[in-house]
Amino acid sequence: MVRSIHLGGQRTRKDLADRLELNRSTIKAVVDELVGDGLAIENPDSSGGNAGRPSLVVAPVPSSVWVVAVDAAIDWLTVAAVGLGGSVLAEVRLEPPAGEFDPQVLVRLLGDAVTSIGARFDRPPSAVGVAVPGLVRSSDNLVRSAPNLGWVDVPLGDMLAAETGSDVFVGNESNLGALAEHVRGAARDVDDVVYLMADVGVGGGVISSGVTVVGAGGYAVELGHMGINGRRRCRCGSLGCWETEVGRFAMQRAVGLPEHATIDELCDRLQSCTPGDPVLDSYAEWLALGLRNVVAMFDPRVVVFGGLFADLLPAVQDRLVASLAESLVVRQFGVQLRPAALGSRASLVGAAEVAFATVLDRV
Amino acid sequence: MVRSIHLGGQRTRKDLADRLELNRSTIKAVVDELVGDGLAIENPDSSGGNAGRPSLVVAPVPSSVWVVAVDAAIDWLTVAAVGLGGSVLAEVRLEPPAGEFDPQVLVRLLGDAVTSIGARFDRPPSAVGVAVPGLVRSSDNLVRSAPNLGWVDVPLGDMLAAETGSDVFVGNESNLGALAEHVRGAARDVDDVVYLMADVGVGGGVISSGVTVVGAGGYAVELGHMGINGRRRCRCGSLGCWETEVGRFAMQRAVGLPEHATIDELCDRLQSCTPGDPVLDSYAEWLALGLRNVVAMFDPRVVVFGGLFADLLPAVQDRLVASLAESLVVRQFGVQLRPAALGSRASLVGAAEVAFATVLDRV
Repeated sequence: MVRSIHLGGQRTRKDLADRLELNRSTIKAVVDELVGDGLAIENPDSSGGNAGRPSLVVAPVPSSVWVVAVDAAIDWLTVAAVGLGGSVLAEVRLEPPAGEFDPQVLVRLLGDAVTSIGARFDRPPSAVGVAVPGLVRSSDNLVRSAPNLGWVDVPLGDMLAAETGSDVFVGNESNLGALAEHVRGAARDVDDVVYLMADVGVGGGVISSGVTVVGAGGYAVELGHMGINGRRRCRCGSLGCWETEVGRFAMQRAVGLPEHATIDELCDRLQSCTPGDPVLDSYAEWLALGLRNVVAMFDPRVVVFGGLFADLLPAVQDRLVASLAESLVVRQFGVQLRPAALGSRASLVGAAEVAFATVLDRV
Repeated sequence: MVRSIHLGGQRTRKDLADRLELNRSTIKAVVDELVGDGLAIENPDSSGGNAGRPSLVVAPVPSSVWVVAVDAAIDWLTVAAVGLGGSVLAEVRLEPPAGEFDPQVLVRLLGDAVTSIGARFDRPPSAVGVAVPGLVRSSDNLVRSAPNLGWVDVPLGDMLAAETGSDVFVGNESNLGALAEHVRGAARDVDDVVYLMADVGVGGGVISSGVTVVGAGGYAVELGHMGINGRRRCRCGSLGCWETEVGRFAMQRAVGLPEHATIDELCDRLQSCTPGDPVLDSYAEWLALGLRNVVAMFDPRVVVFGGLFADLLPAVQDRLVASLAESLVVRQFGVQLRPAALGSRASLVGAAEVAFATVLDRV
């Protein structure tokens, strides 16, 4: 129930009753309890339409339960206080000393940020969620490797728990991005979702039958390292990983930008590409190959294109659809392609949601 | 509880109590009820070891609940009565008139077989499970396409339910093979499993966090049609699907057998290959590429090699392991490679288990 108002925002009692398949009197009792506990309030329905007695809508009280979400991107850290219902109550951006990714330093910075953000609340955060660009072992929130931070086997979860005194959940940025697009983005109410995102590397995440695919160690879904028989050596050591043909530098090659081009230059250039643009011919083939691959594997209802892929999608969407239709097998799956809705916020939103996930079980 | 004796076979009360985390008196009550309902019996523990009073073991009564399992392979149909605990109580093999895969004819044959098998039981089967070499829509057990049977949009579930009067579950043969190896085969007690199997085509199935990955329509996991940038046209219409490089005919090419070689000739030849056999050099690279791919996607604890892959595994295992180790990412997943335990029985066993799955919820 509290999950329902957290995820769905404000709703009428009737809507809640319908969705949760509970009767009127049960809903009344539950809502009264949530209101009594300070987790929800009831407001007149401002959407209008009803002639007679105005109905009440049940809305989450954001500050009643809050979590800290951290996005440990490569150039900066974003730290946010996120309240029940998903609203961002406070946010700071930290820039560590240039190139300084020493875990101890980072954890202290984060601890200070949590303390200063927490000063405005009358209780500590219920949990902390952290998105990291790397492999995270789910059993103990240990960062196995994060090449762009230079980390190997950093027990980030334990360190941050000791620093903040809170429960900490650490996840891969793309897996959390997938969760975010599923819960609050382009694939809301869709149970089978593949999320693809491109930056320098390519990552992804999958929701299957409503549940995140995590794998035995927590390392699924490393889409960037699927083997598609390319000719370039990947930074992971293997030959021909997908990300060598569809990641940021491959995009820059395709549109004729030098390797040192800025991300803004690339985004501008991608957005100016037109559907069917011939400069993308070869690039689109590699993209289509990997897409067919993940569709054949996961049979998603929706594939969400995030990061740089979102800027690129309008120019290649028709070709991707045509390529999927080539296969008598894959064409039957009826998948939809959508740009991401949350942009660069996806990992941060996902970090908040993974923190909320266990918190809401306890409320 | 009944699921526990169905899957685990006979067990002492103490073992059951430990596994289900129930106390002594609760276990006694539940076992007494199962015995009273005729679903279980208690026998003296024949494993010995205990000096004092012999303990009792609780065992399923096979004929108390039974299902029909059907494997609709290309050359014949296998129909089995499978009892609680998984034992095969009766089995027939049907050979339809040569090349005769008319769904009506097949359904009538199956109906007759179910009737004749059922004559020895004092109740009808609780459910029917069918393994089909094709795409099956999970919502309504419709066979979307089964190229080797020449079927398109055959409502096999509905037809067979009308013919037999039982609940019918239809699934893809490889998905059911995966379930079988997970429940009763090489990956028992492993929650994250990828099953790969080769025949003419290549198929697979995935168990992730203990749950079968089904996808939006039920069409996951079409491993044979992942795109690995091969140069051969696949029977699905796409260029370079994995099965064109690792399926039966690719194996035959690799070991120098003509296209019309028999399956026995191929198996003999594969079994005579030695580890590191140079005739398999190029073949093994394609196999390794797809393997890396599924490992990167699903992060399984165990990959089970079924069908013709099982015969091949000893000769290529070292190379596959070395190939996975090349990637700094994938090497960290720590996956194990195992030959399938159930051989050509996997799909039949899986068909029984998918039938039992809902039956046991009701018992």
